[in-house]
Amino acid sequence: MMLCRVDGNITSTVKHPTATGVRFLICQPITADGAEVGAPTVAVDTLGAGLHARVIVTTDGKYMTEVLKSDKTPVRNSIIGIVDQ
Amino acid sequence: MMLCRVDGNITSTVKHPTATGVRFLICQPITADGAEVGAPTVAVDTLGAGLHARVIVTTDGKYMTEVLKSDKTPVRNSIIGIVDQ
Amino acid sequence: MMLCRVDGNITSTVKHPTATGVRFLICQPITADGAEVGAPTVAVDTLGAGLHARVIVTTDGKYMTEVLKSDKTPVRNSIIGIVDQ
Amino acid sequence: MMLCRVDGNITSTVKHPTATGVRFLICQPITADGAEVGAPTVAVDTLGAGLHARVIVTTDGKYMTEVLKSDKTPVRNSIIGIVDQ
Amino acid sequence: MMLCRVDGNITSTVKHPTATGVRFLICQPITADGAEVGAPTVAVDTLGAGLHARVIVTTDGKYMTEVLKSDKTPVRNSIIGIVDQ
Repeated sequence: MMLCRVDGNITSTVKHPTATGVRFLICQPITADGAEVGAPTVAVDTLGAGLHARVIVTTDGKYMTEVLKSDKTPVRNSIIGIVDQ
Repeated sequence: MMLCRVDGNITSTVKHPTATGVRFLICQPITADGAEVGAPTVAVDTLGAGLHARVIVTTDGKYMTEVLKSDKTPVRNSIIGIVDQ
Repeated sequence: MMLCRVDGNITSTVKHPTATGVRFLICQPITADGAEVGAPTVAVDTLGAGLHARVIVTTDGKYMTEVLKSDKTPVRNSIIGIVDQ
Repeated sequence: MMLCRVDGNITSTVKHPTATGVRFLICQPITADGAEVGAPTVAVDTLGAGLHARVIVTTDGKYMTEVLKSDKTPVRNSIIGIVDQ
Repeated sequence: MMLCRVDGNITSTVKHPTATGVRFLICQPITADGAEVGAPTVAVDTLGAGLHARVIVTTDGKYMTEVLKSDKTPVRNSIIGIVDQ
């Protein structure tokens, strides 16, 4: 799980059929002080995270299996918490 | 899942028997601004991503299990979305 | 598993329903000499690790499945040991 | 999966009992242009990759489970393709 | 799997109950030439690796499940080979 800052969203028309109706966000890993570190990750947001919000991102796909109603979906990362400001 | 830019394709004659007929692409992780960051990943493309296209790459292998019709395939990463331009 | 230093805690009101009542800590990977290296990870603490404590963090989610009493929780990383001082 | 260059082989006498008779190679991740990037990975070779060959390395352990005839082997990474020259 | 150099051991009194009686080592990833690269990993040693030994570390937890006699242990990484000198 990573501490990230939301850096933008992604629109994708050509995509895996199970990925319909989800919101993909670009999430930049940051340190406790907010410094950028390492490569961004793409995660699905179901919590309503805004641009520049700090979020907790998981790489565990079980939640996406549930949200997308598909045991076969390759969609994996998701936002599991919005950090209080 | 990573935001990547397609940097090239790979041709491989000597390979795992389950990897027949798939298109391997070199995918370079990038930031929201397009800056390169970290090591490239190799992913299978089934969506028709072109050179320099921006794509979402998953490390979840379930889709490849389905595409390659093999529960035993070690092929894992795939492109699950092409980012709209 | 990573050797980390606890750099802070995270409070999150809007979060995944299975993540209730857990303590999320920001854990910075360090070398044997204590130098920071790489991106921090977020892990659940059940052992009572204090700020600046050195800890062992796992990315294996089985313990969280047990603690949170949910086979479907996407919460994954946890502290599995506090390093003796 | 990673694009790597074979940088050497490893001989190990003291090892996990399931790892008998396998060839471990040091595989350095590279970019499409051949530049080194990130930490090397150790992978089992069953395809006959030579020194300096470019290869595709997977972190999926299913193939090793099959090759080593053990559901319990912790051996995981393997070379799944040699890049054509 | 990673090529690592053993940089030290960790003693931990407060830890997950399944982690009793194991030896945690700090393992620094290195290149084929011995240069340090990336963040260290913590791995369990059952092979008797000494300080500064070069080892192969796996992130696959199946061996630990067996050693610790627990399907629920979150202990994961282990040393699966000591590199011959």
